[in-house]
Amino acid sequence: MKAFYGDLKLGILGGGQLGRMLIQQAINYNVTIKVLDPDREAPCRKLCDEFVVGSLNDYETVYNFGKKVDMLTIEIEKVNVDALEQLEKEGVLVYPQPRVIRLIQDKGLQKQFFKENNIPTAEFQVISSAAQLKESHIPFPYIQKLRRDGYDGRGVYKVIDESYLEKAFTEPSLIERWIDFEKEIGIIVARSENGEVKTFPLVEMEFNPQVNLVEFLISPSTLPFEIQQDAAQIAVKIAEDLKIVGLLAVEMFLDKHGKILVNELAPRPHNSGHQSIEGNVVSQFEQHLRAIFNQPLGDTACLNNAIMVNVLGEAGYEGPAVYEGIEKVLKCPGVYVHLYGKALTKPFRKMGHVTIIDADREKAIEKARFVQATLKVIS
Amino acid sequence: MKAFYGDLKLGILGGGQLGRMLIQQAINYNVTIKVLDPDREAPCRKLCDEFVVGSLNDYETVYNFGKKVDMLTIEIEKVNVDALEQLEKEGVLVYPQPRVIRLIQDKGLQKQFFKENNIPTAEFQVISSAAQLKESHIPFPYIQKLRRDGYDGRGVYKVIDESYLEKAFTEPSLIERWIDFEKEIGIIVARSENGEVKTFPLVEMEFNPQVNLVEFLISPSTLPFEIQQDAAQIAVKIAEDLKIVGLLAVEMFLDKHGKILVNELAPRPHNSGHQSIEGNVVSQFEQHLRAIFNQPLGDTACLNNAIMVNVLGEAGYEGPAVYEGIEKVLKCPGVYVHLYGKALTKPFRKMGHVTIIDADREKAIEKARFVQATLKVIS
Repeated sequence: MKAFYGDLKLGILGGGQLGRMLIQQAINYNVTIKVLDPDREAPCRKLCDEFVVGSLNDYETVYNFGKKVDMLTIEIEKVNVDALEQLEKEGVLVYPQPRVIRLIQDKGLQKQFFKENNIPTAEFQVISSAAQLKESHIPFPYIQKLRRDGYDGRGVYKVIDESYLEKAFTEPSLIERWIDFEKEIGIIVARSENGEVKTFPLVEMEFNPQVNLVEFLISPSTLPFEIQQDAAQIAVKIAEDLKIVGLLAVEMFLDKHGKILVNELAPRPHNSGHQSIEGNVVSQFEQHLRAIFNQPLGDTACLNNAIMVNVLGEAGYEGPAVYEGIEKVLKCPGVYVHLYGKALTKPFRKMGHVTIIDADREKAIEKARFVQATLKVIS
Repeated sequence: MKAFYGDLKLGILGGGQLGRMLIQQAINYNVTIKVLDPDREAPCRKLCDEFVVGSLNDYETVYNFGKKVDMLTIEIEKVNVDALEQLEKEGVLVYPQPRVIRLIQDKGLQKQFFKENNIPTAEFQVISSAAQLKESHIPFPYIQKLRRDGYDGRGVYKVIDESYLEKAFTEPSLIERWIDFEKEIGIIVARSENGEVKTFPLVEMEFNPQVNLVEFLISPSTLPFEIQQDAAQIAVKIAEDLKIVGLLAVEMFLDKHGKILVNELAPRPHNSGHQSIEGNVVSQFEQHLRAIFNQPLGDTACLNNAIMVNVLGEAGYEGPAVYEGIEKVLKCPGVYVHLYGKALTKPFRKMGHVTIIDADREKAIEKARFVQATLKVIS
């Protein structure tokens, strides 16, 4: 395997924190890494063999970048897929495959895929005009999502009644029946080129409704075994139906009746898997590398209870970041601070995360609340 | 703390695997890193903000490098200490302190320090000429060690009887009574600027006598509690007597009577602590950073049995490295491969290490033997 000899040139589209943590792991395998990102201050800028500043959405930029590597992967799915398809035709290994990225980029196609493959998901309708929205068959309240380019809660709008239609998106979108869910849960699954598939244990998420971001994640889930098994089977089925090569994050709702509904997919390492760095035998980043390098997938078992807390820029602060309370947090045993190398903070920007491990689940939760109350990113 | 904001410029003297693993950890704290190493192909070359090619032993080179950083640390102790002392005078934070590096660089001074501070060590004599060697008061067999620049078994010579004197070193050296030891053991201790001191649990080593390198390390030790306690107390005493800031690896012998004798010190992350990356709550690299940044030291408890196997260049092969058997090794659960990014192998060169974790100690040993028999670095 060329990767181990420093000869494999791996290109990463996107130079954010996911790329950064992927590189931290790839160092162990002597991979030569090139990164493309539009931001010259991106978190990966200093950690790779070559850092190229350029648009991820421009055909020429992505094509020219891809021509210089042996294998391409992504840390964000908003990339130029036409260029990736051309590169694939010309023999560059692109994992996940361009057709998978194209499907997942478009929330409408994603939902169609769920429907066609009998994957449980909330009732939906694809909408292409404001007029169509008014005649939709989904009852209020419902969620409107832009088909493309939504991210971290952007491009999502809750339509509670007719009066909300005025401010609805007019771009191509998707509307979904409002799920009064019990819990948000997630599973990360990996599939390698030779067809091996492995899931990570189910995790439970707590969202900050104000900003629609995961801010608290608990691994492993303590939901009943049947639910965990259902979720894992759904994740495996999606990975196999897609024939994806690489990591796939499957975000799901558990409704009040114990039924699982798939919400969204991400074909890459994901915020809901960060706790795996310390909490599981292999991390999501290691697993993604094993999958794309067609190596045996690693053991995903949990080593400990692990809680992941996102470290977000504090509301009301913008400018050079100051990490208040970090010393108190480091004093706490089993607490791991990961900062993302971003010089500037702004409200709710993901500046880092903290993982807390503890053999006692309640103690882990207590420590997580302490971390949340103590560590503040101000300016 | 400036480190967290990307403003702290940390210089590392030496760009080998120890620096590489230190950087892997420092990424989490937004540290700006500059590395000095004479080898333009050194393992750290692509992972830092600035990589400077130059001699670690040249006053001007080290001084000029150090003037551009806020804090200096080392990953090898063979560095120009005069330059470090000048830098320290001029306000650069140098951890470990130059006086500690100077003492440890010279095995004669190290032994004198042990003697003066009542630290148990093998009987010794400092030798400055071949004539003096013939009149020594240490009985045969004994070990002759060069006072300076020995490394990984180089600069060590066993004098079995008078006939061996002919080939003895003529440079300033040290002779030590031969210890017919039961086991080699090691403890890593950290001390931060504010005086906090913490030891890692005791580890046991198995050496390859052919090349005098650790090739197998087991953590934690299963020796009786009193021995573990003695070893920890000795390590703490040395760290406190030295008032070192940073990590200190203490290599010790356990003799046939259960007595501990200190062999050698290393004022930096050490080969005998690599298993801490996966095996302990915090790793030696994290702990070194916490110590030099004057942050609370981390919890050093073992999470699991962990065995560390050095991956050495196979005898008889020299040239571009090929890692035979890596796929079989990755198939084994709880096995972590760390390659050091060295393009060329040569006999017994440290090319990487593998850590094996398992809740069952015997199974961990079994897997380690499998890894040793399976993973070969050839050319």
